[in-house]
Amino acid sequence: MAYIDRIHACNGWNPKEFLPFMINSQPRGWVRQALALRLAEWHGVFKLDAQTLHLSPSLDGLEQRSLAVAGVLRELVENHELPPFHGERYPVGTSRERPELLLDRAMVNHFGVHAHGQHINGLVRDGERLSLWIGRRARDKRNFPGMLDHLAAGGLPHGITPADNLLKECWEEAAIPRELACRARSVGALTYCKETKYGLKPDTIFCYDLELPVEFRPRCNDGEVESFELMPIEDVETLVRDTEEFKPNCSLVIIDLLIRHGRLGPETDDYLGLVQGLHPNLP
Amino acid sequence: MAYIDRIHACNGWNPKEFLPFMINSQPRGWVRQALALRLAEWHGVFKLDAQTLHLSPSLDGLEQRSLAVAGVLRELVENHELPPFHGERYPVGTSRERPELLLDRAMVNHFGVHAHGQHINGLVRDGERLSLWIGRRARDKRNFPGMLDHLAAGGLPHGITPADNLLKECWEEAAIPRELACRARSVGALTYCKETKYGLKPDTIFCYDLELPVEFRPRCNDGEVESFELMPIEDVETLVRDTEEFKPNCSLVIIDLLIRHGRLGPETDDYLGLVQGLHPNLP
Repeated sequence: MAYIDRIHACNGWNPKEFLPFMINSQPRGWVRQALALRLAEWHGVFKLDAQTLHLSPSLDGLEQRSLAVAGVLRELVENHELPPFHGERYPVGTSRERPELLLDRAMVNHFGVHAHGQHINGLVRDGERLSLWIGRRARDKRNFPGMLDHLAAGGLPHGITPADNLLKECWEEAAIPRELACRARSVGALTYCKETKYGLKPDTIFCYDLELPVEFRPRCNDGEVESFELMPIEDVETLVRDTEEFKPNCSLVIIDLLIRHGRLGPETDDYLGLVQGLHPNLP
Repeated sequence: MAYIDRIHACNGWNPKEFLPFMINSQPRGWVRQALALRLAEWHGVFKLDAQTLHLSPSLDGLEQRSLAVAGVLRELVENHELPPFHGERYPVGTSRERPELLLDRAMVNHFGVHAHGQHINGLVRDGERLSLWIGRRARDKRNFPGMLDHLAAGGLPHGITPADNLLKECWEEAAIPRELACRARSVGALTYCKETKYGLKPDTIFCYDLELPVEFRPRCNDGEVESFELMPIEDVETLVRDTEEFKPNCSLVIIDLLIRHGRLGPETDDYLGLVQGLHPNLP
């Protein structure tokens, strides 16, 4: 196995399976055919036209649109056609600050809209030795139970800035105090797009490096992580390259880290393929 | 003006102006129509077929191909239809280590083949203050005379590893001794593709950060740089964002640095556009 396999594992979808979802005639997501047909039964909210699902133009403004869509989705949830609401709302549109629609987090992939997350690499330097704090996901998590994960990571919902959400995730997932989490440095962003059982996931991850003192010990505050381990970077490399133990999108963030820290470079096979594979344009 | 303008300035070409150049039926470059017609006059070396310029399949092996092509190009140089040879040979093909053809550096853009370069960010940290060593290109340089440039940068010719070429460029361009240059850390790669008066330039830049001691002073050994200045990162930001003083591809490397060092981040307007704009797929 190879690093590029980790990138392939996070990418791939069949456009024939999906219909575009538009707001004001602008493409905003992708919906499976069956769901699009079902949604189009609510004439006042959705309209299916020329193989495209439109949000009804009669709905105007963020709150009116969001309430109308949530009303339809609640009926489908109650009917067990969609999973339960998550309770967090995600922004839909080209601007996170000025969204056109708010969608429950559990519906984001069903609508194939762009979502954003944050992953924090927890680094420890001890002389020349570089290590990474790695979490093991709780066995009872719905997604990727028991897999290896970052020190802290999470989705970026509506109504909170990236900087504040980072502090929140660091505290909830790893008990990193604010004054330490503040030192996290934004280091880039990566993208991927994958068809899942829920729908389409065109995702952007904002990546951060947080250099932690040798004596710091993370501790899980919200039950999402079973345990943490400080791993030498060489062991992380082996696990990412040769196994599928990491939650798939964590592998991408770690490959990006290996590139930025000079552990993968121009001498690496298909180096440019790795660099570009982390930044595909999203549909 | 804005950072994204610097990215746009390095990208853009009209495919209608160019014909594909193929070796063994594999696309390897892009040649302007007029040059393709002229090259096709050498029947034993080139063949124009269905709007594609082919290297003659009768030429086999690296040396035979490279000699035959150089022979044709020498005639065109002597006839003043192409610029003089540069004297360095660049590899053509998907692998730098196993090239299919060697082409004089001065011909690379005329054939629109992928080329690789290296740029070294010379960083100085003084407490919280971050500064960058910036060079001013000599006024008599053929390309971009008098513009701002990196501490050291150069193309990556055939027959030398990226690591060795880096040491060579650091010494020639900025008198950085080997033991210091060795500390340069590979931090990523970026791509761009631009139509120029010479032809097409689909380029990959391997980027490096070199942290230098406060007391180090670069000095130009080869006459390519007129002077060096240690600039606070804030001044570099302003120059890149609001002026066209930097050699265009240096701006890309600096935008990448600002992203990796957290000076541009998720709060920046069109952040993802900047990140993805640095990594377009090359034709």
